[in-house]
Amino acid sequence: MPGKNIFYAQSGGVTAVINASACGVIETARAHPELGSVYAGRNGIIGALREELIDTSLETDESIAALRHTPAGAFGSCRYKLKSLDENRAEYERLIEVFKAHNIGYFFYNGGGDSQDTAHKVSQLSQEINYPITCIGIPKTVDNDLPITDNCPGFGSVAKYVAVSIREAGLDVASMCESSTKVFVMEVMGRHAGWIAGAAGLAAEQEGDPPHIIVFPEIAFDTNAFLAKVKSSVEQHGYCAIVVSEGAHYEDGTFLADQGTRDAFGHAQLGGVAPMLANMIKDGLGYKYHWAVSDYLQRAARHISSGTDVEQAYAMGKAAVEMALAGKNAMMPTVVRESSYPYKWHIGEANLADIANVEKKMPRDFITEDGFGITEAAREYFAPLILGEDYPPYKNGLPDFARLKKSLVDKKLSAWSE
Amino acid sequence: MPGKNIFYAQSGGVTAVINASACGVIETARAHPELGSVYAGRNGIIGALREELIDTSLETDESIAALRHTPAGAFGSCRYKLKSLDENRAEYERLIEVFKAHNIGYFFYNGGGDSQDTAHKVSQLSQEINYPITCIGIPKTVDNDLPITDNCPGFGSVAKYVAVSIREAGLDVASMCESSTKVFVMEVMGRHAGWIAGAAGLAAEQEGDPPHIIVFPEIAFDTNAFLAKVKSSVEQHGYCAIVVSEGAHYEDGTFLADQGTRDAFGHAQLGGVAPMLANMIKDGLGYKYHWAVSDYLQRAARHISSGTDVEQAYAMGKAAVEMALAGKNAMMPTVVRESSYPYKWHIGEANLADIANVEKKMPRDFITEDGFGITEAAREYFAPLILGEDYPPYKNGLPDFARLKKSLVDKKLSAWSE
Repeated sequence: MPGKNIFYAQSGGVTAVINASACGVIETARAHPELGSVYAGRNGIIGALREELIDTSLETDESIAALRHTPAGAFGSCRYKLKSLDENRAEYERLIEVFKAHNIGYFFYNGGGDSQDTAHKVSQLSQEINYPITCIGIPKTVDNDLPITDNCPGFGSVAKYVAVSIREAGLDVASMCESSTKVFVMEVMGRHAGWIAGAAGLAAEQEGDPPHIIVFPEIAFDTNAFLAKVKSSVEQHGYCAIVVSEGAHYEDGTFLADQGTRDAFGHAQLGGVAPMLANMIKDGLGYKYHWAVSDYLQRAARHISSGTDVEQAYAMGKAAVEMALAGKNAMMPTVVRESSYPYKWHIGEANLADIANVEKKMPRDFITEDGFGITEAAREYFAPLILGEDYPPYKNGLPDFARLKKSLVDKKLSAWSE
Repeated sequence: MPGKNIFYAQSGGVTAVINASACGVIETARAHPELGSVYAGRNGIIGALREELIDTSLETDESIAALRHTPAGAFGSCRYKLKSLDENRAEYERLIEVFKAHNIGYFFYNGGGDSQDTAHKVSQLSQEINYPITCIGIPKTVDNDLPITDNCPGFGSVAKYVAVSIREAGLDVASMCESSTKVFVMEVMGRHAGWIAGAAGLAAEQEGDPPHIIVFPEIAFDTNAFLAKVKSSVEQHGYCAIVVSEGAHYEDGTFLADQGTRDAFGHAQLGGVAPMLANMIKDGLGYKYHWAVSDYLQRAARHISSGTDVEQAYAMGKAAVEMALAGKNAMMPTVVRESSYPYKWHIGEANLADIANVEKKMPRDFITEDGFGITEAAREYFAPLILGEDYPPYKNGLPDFARLKKSLVDKKLSAWSE
């Protein structure tokens, strides 16, 4: 008799390497005949509630291997946070009902803090009602905000993308600054923490290299100090390359991007912080500018993923299966750093109870005193995470990503009323 | 006695591969002892006027070889159009004075239509005043708008960048669309022509693949038709990935990006067309959206350059030197396509008189009848141009680009009053 089946789900904003974790889960499970099939939630945990389970055993080994180099969530993800057990016990009970119906004994939840919290709650309920489900969290977030683990899979690839991009665009501005564009502003993700913005600082290896200014959400924005820094950069280097975190805000907490901008009809306009800063510079200093907002491009950019990140994402998926097989429960594998130069790390583990709903902040000593750059401590932390290139295969000049069948398992229960 | 020296200048907006052309010029010149040194204009043609000539003979072979994989303009470029001979003969005379003073007999101008026009005028004047200067244009423009040549170096790499990016970001949106973002808008360059936007269409290989909509500057924007197409894409595929050219405009010629937007103080705001379309969709259809503006990132993205493009950029630089040695003058090497599948091409040549100030438009039959997609004819044209990957070397996880000495030749003339 085959063992219990596995339910795997992707959660929250996707990354360039979350499918590498899926690949690690599925390939490792396939190597263990004592495990049943891996069912993936169609569109994440919603797939479990709706009993929409993708049977990954119907995918070829080649398709599963291709997940390692395919960005975004191959099975679909969702922004859907289960409420607390008290508030909506029915949802948790439905999950367990679906798990029971499909002989699922393992729940692997690939996501950020909220997801680890959900996995933890499912684990608690399963003990309470005496239906054993092994719950293992798999870390994922471009925001790098999970505690205990040294870093989160997904972050290293965004870090590499933003550092490469500002190095390249910086060279462009340097070429043009004598007679044209003098300021370039690149907006990056990070509403609450400056991990991504900070990583862009790796591009600057020598005095004068771009980026010249980083605007962090950790530091209250000071217009005068900012404009003075832009001016001195242009005077010193001929140009100024700026990286700004989407979460940049004033002392009173107002986001820079929230400028009360109105269109011709008086409607509020949602704009990026990059164009807002660019206009501020134009108004205050008169410099010609360009700006970019990479948005999803940065977190989907599998073509320039960090080799370290891909390796760790896969390793987290693999470790999740191995931990489950070793009888561990309500835990998450972590990255434990042994040394930065040279980079050495191993896999550790944490209790979901200690991960759930704890947000890791970037240390203040990662930011220079003037608030516009990164320190050596930050550099040491970030540098190993972007090491290595892991290019996807190309066909017709384009990355050849996985195309899955995504066949659903036959339903056994009545429909779920949402 | 060494031969005449070469003056090489980069002009206009830079590209991911313009330095590959510089590399082709310098390496080829070095292989010909009958040629003198290659002097590069510091910040383009401005460097000639100011007598700021970078002596490339002081750069190592390794540094010159590294230009092949270094984006942007390594010697500096400029947006500086010489006026007509009648309007400002003094500028042309100054150029020739500098050329004389430094024993320069060859002028290689690496740029778009304006630059080819300037090279042509310098050639005419040199004949008129009987100081022989061999003038050869080297094509460069991400806009792909030079006539006669099948395509322009610089374009293929932007084409690859936008196609790769929308494929990756499209997968991201597909992952999220069930419970979150349903529409993604990516803005690309192209104020007058939709070459770049069109190339993004290569990402869609199967029915339903992103991008689902391309907004071209060739087609007057029709709000109702656009919103209907977005709606049907979301209903059919669950999401809609859109590529929009910065030059998208209404029937009356007004750019979509020019929305009369005002900030809280009533100042006009310059915004991108991507956020404008995103807001239009939110208002009209209520879908959650994300948007990106890649701006300089797209044209500087040497990390994902097209192998075809790099090869052709280098070949154009090499051909320029060979044409000059063969006694040709007032000409530009071109790319001549022999076949698309398989891709075959060779180097041709064109007279600068036929290139100068002629803008190549994208054929209407490259755009589908509904105005929102590309045809098979377009696909056949674009497909070969993104073939091949040509990755730069990496160090510490980042592309290891050329760092030149850029030593200036001693001045011999009095200062140029600008």
